[in-house]
Amino acid sequence: MLHAVIMAGGTGSRFWPKSTRKRPKQFLDLFGDRTMLQATVQRIESLVPPERIWIITNEQYVDLVAKQLPEVPGSNIVGEPVAKNTAPCVALAAGLLERKDPDATMVVLPADHTIEEVDAFLEILETAAAKAKNEETLVTIGIKPSRPETGYGYIEFVENASETVNGRPVYRVAQFREKPDLETARQFVDSGNFLWNSGMFIWSNRTILKQFEQHLPEIHEQIQQLPEEPEEDGWESSIEAFYNACPSISIDYGIMEKAGSVHVVPGAFGWNDVGSWKAVYELMPKDASGNVVRAAYALGESSENNLIQVEGKKMVALVGVENLAVVETEDAILVCNLDHAQEVKQIVNRLHEKEELKKFL
Amino acid sequence: MLHAVIMAGGTGSRFWPKSTRKRPKQFLDLFGDRTMLQATVQRIESLVPPERIWIITNEQYVDLVAKQLPEVPGSNIVGEPVAKNTAPCVALAAGLLERKDPDATMVVLPADHTIEEVDAFLEILETAAAKAKNEETLVTIGIKPSRPETGYGYIEFVENASETVNGRPVYRVAQFREKPDLETARQFVDSGNFLWNSGMFIWSNRTILKQFEQHLPEIHEQIQQLPEEPEEDGWESSIEAFYNACPSISIDYGIMEKAGSVHVVPGAFGWNDVGSWKAVYELMPKDASGNVVRAAYALGESSENNLIQVEGKKMVALVGVENLAVVETEDAILVCNLDHAQEVKQIVNRLHEKEELKKFL
Repeated sequence: MLHAVIMAGGTGSRFWPKSTRKRPKQFLDLFGDRTMLQATVQRIESLVPPERIWIITNEQYVDLVAKQLPEVPGSNIVGEPVAKNTAPCVALAAGLLERKDPDATMVVLPADHTIEEVDAFLEILETAAAKAKNEETLVTIGIKPSRPETGYGYIEFVENASETVNGRPVYRVAQFREKPDLETARQFVDSGNFLWNSGMFIWSNRTILKQFEQHLPEIHEQIQQLPEEPEEDGWESSIEAFYNACPSISIDYGIMEKAGSVHVVPGAFGWNDVGSWKAVYELMPKDASGNVVRAAYALGESSENNLIQVEGKKMVALVGVENLAVVETEDAILVCNLDHAQEVKQIVNRLHEKEELKKFL
Repeated sequence: MLHAVIMAGGTGSRFWPKSTRKRPKQFLDLFGDRTMLQATVQRIESLVPPERIWIITNEQYVDLVAKQLPEVPGSNIVGEPVAKNTAPCVALAAGLLERKDPDATMVVLPADHTIEEVDAFLEILETAAAKAKNEETLVTIGIKPSRPETGYGYIEFVENASETVNGRPVYRVAQFREKPDLETARQFVDSGNFLWNSGMFIWSNRTILKQFEQHLPEIHEQIQQLPEEPEEDGWESSIEAFYNACPSISIDYGIMEKAGSVHVVPGAFGWNDVGSWKAVYELMPKDASGNVVRAAYALGESSENNLIQVEGKKMVALVGVENLAVVETEDAILVCNLDHAQEVKQIVNRLHEKEELKKFL
C-alpha cells in the first residue's frame, strides 16, 4: 500500500513575525483559508487516505497538527522530542511501517511547499510510486528549472539512461549538487539535464530499510530497538530513546548521495518551496497596482507591487512605496524590501540574542 | 501690555494616522514629551505670562487645550463653533482685547510650528513688538530662507527702507507672494530681499481694529456686536452669532496684502512649520544609521534614514528599506516614502469619501 510521510517539524524563521516558535510556516494560512500542512494533506488524499498519512513533527506541535488535521488518526501523528534533521525522521517512519505494513511504499513530502497543478503532481507521484514499488531503487521528484535559481539544490540525471513508466520518462540520477552560485546555476539550467531537488522521495519500505542498514547502520540499529507494537505502553519513551541515540543527519547527505541506485522523475507542476515573503508575493493574485492585500482595511497611494498581510482590524495605508512586505501580527510589525526578504532571518537571530526580545519569537 | 493669541484651530491631515479629527497635529507630542501647543506656550512664557495668553481653537478642542495648558485661565480659551479661516479668529481676539486691555499689543502665533533657538526668536519678537507698539503699522516676522522652498509663501521687503529697532533691522514690506514654483523660488532666494512668511504677526490692538474697519468692515461690524463683558451670560451665543456672520477669509488676504503700512523683522532661529512626516524626520535626532526611532522595541537590518513612530508595545522590524515613515497607532498603520509625505493628504481624502472608513479619521 502507498503511505505518505509528511515532514512537518520545521521551525523556520523566514516568515517572522507571522511564523513564530508557537506556529511555524507549515501551520500558517499564508495563501488562503488552508494552512500549508492542510494543503499538503488534501493534495494527496485522492491517492493516500488519511489513515495511511503519517505526520512527523516536533512534539510541541502534535496538538496543533491534530487540530489542523482532524481526519488523520491521532496515532499517525508522531512528535519528535528533539530535531535531528531528516534521516532519523524517515527512519522512524520506516520502522513504523515495517511493523504496520511491511510491503508499504513510502512517499516522503515536506509540509511547507506549494503546488499549483495538483493533477499533474499526482501523475508524477504515481509514476514515481510505480517505479519504487517494482524495483529496489530510491526515487525522487525533480522539478524542471525555470530559472537559474541559486537557492535550491540540483539533481543531475543521466540523459541516455531513461525508461518509460506509466507513459512518463524516469532517469537514473548521476549526482546531487548543493546550492550553486549563479554562473554554475546558469550552466545547470542550460545543460538540460539538471533538475531542482524538491525534497520529495518515494521508495519501498524494504528498500529504504536496507539503505539505512548499509549507509547509516547506527540509525538502523535504533529502528530495530523500536517496540513491535507502537501503540503499547512505553512507546513515548522508546521514541525518546530513538531520537537521543540517532545522529543528526539529513536523508540527502546520509542516504541519497551514497545510494547505488537512485532515479528521478522530472515534473513541472507549479512547485514552490516558499522560501521567503517574496515567494508569497509572487504566488498570490495581484490587484491592478500589482499589490497583494490581505487586510481588513487597506488603501494605497502611488504604491505598487507590495505585499500586505495584517491581522486585526487596522487600516493599512501605503504612500509612494513599492516592492515591500508589510506584515503585522498581534506582537510585531515587519516592513521588508521584498528583494531583502532573506534577511528576515537576521532579525530573528537578533531576537534570539536578547532575553527580553525572545517573547517576539 | 503684550498679549499672545495662539491660533490652534487646525484640523490638519498630513500627520495621519497620528493626527486625527479628535487630536490634530498641534495637540500631538511628535517630538518629545510636550505637544506642539505646549511648546508654543512655554516658548513665550518669559515674555507673556499665561493670563495674557489666548488660545483660539475649534470648540471641540476646548477641553483638550484646557487639559494640555492648565496654567492658562479657562476663560482665555475660546472655541470657534465653525472654522472661518484666520481673519475672524484675529478679529475675535481683537474684540476681546479691546474690552480687556485697549492699549494691548497683540502677537499672533500658530500653534503648530517648531523653533530651535528660542532666545533668538524671543529677541526678534521683542523687536517686532517694540515696532508695533510705537507705530501704526502691521509687523510680521519673516524667516531668512535657507533653500528655494516651494511650500511656503514669501515676503518681499524694500531693501533700502530699513530702520533699526532694539539694535535689529526692520524693513518695509513691498509685497506678499504666494507659494512659488521652483524657478521663481530660486530667484526669490538669490535676490536676497525675500523672506518666508512665518504666519506670525504683531500689532497694536488699536491698529488691527482700524485695519478691520477699513478692509473688512463686515467683520469689524461683528466685533462691535460682541458683549461688553465677555464673561457674562450669553457669551457663547454671541460667539456663535459672530462666527455665523463673519465671512471665511484669511488675515493674509483680507488685511496684510491690503494694508498701507506693513513691516517685517527678519529672523533666523531654526523655524519649521512641520508640514509633513518628512519635516518630523528632519527635525529629530538620528541614530548611527540615520534612523529616527520612537518605539518600545525596534530592530533594523540594512535599513537607513527611516522614521519610526509607533504607539503600543509591538516590535517593529525594518529590513532593507530606506527613506520611509512607519507610523502605527491604535487604529492604523502608515508606511510612507518620505519623499511622498505630502500624499498622506490623499489617503485622508479617501477616508472621508466612504462612510465605513470615517472611523479611521
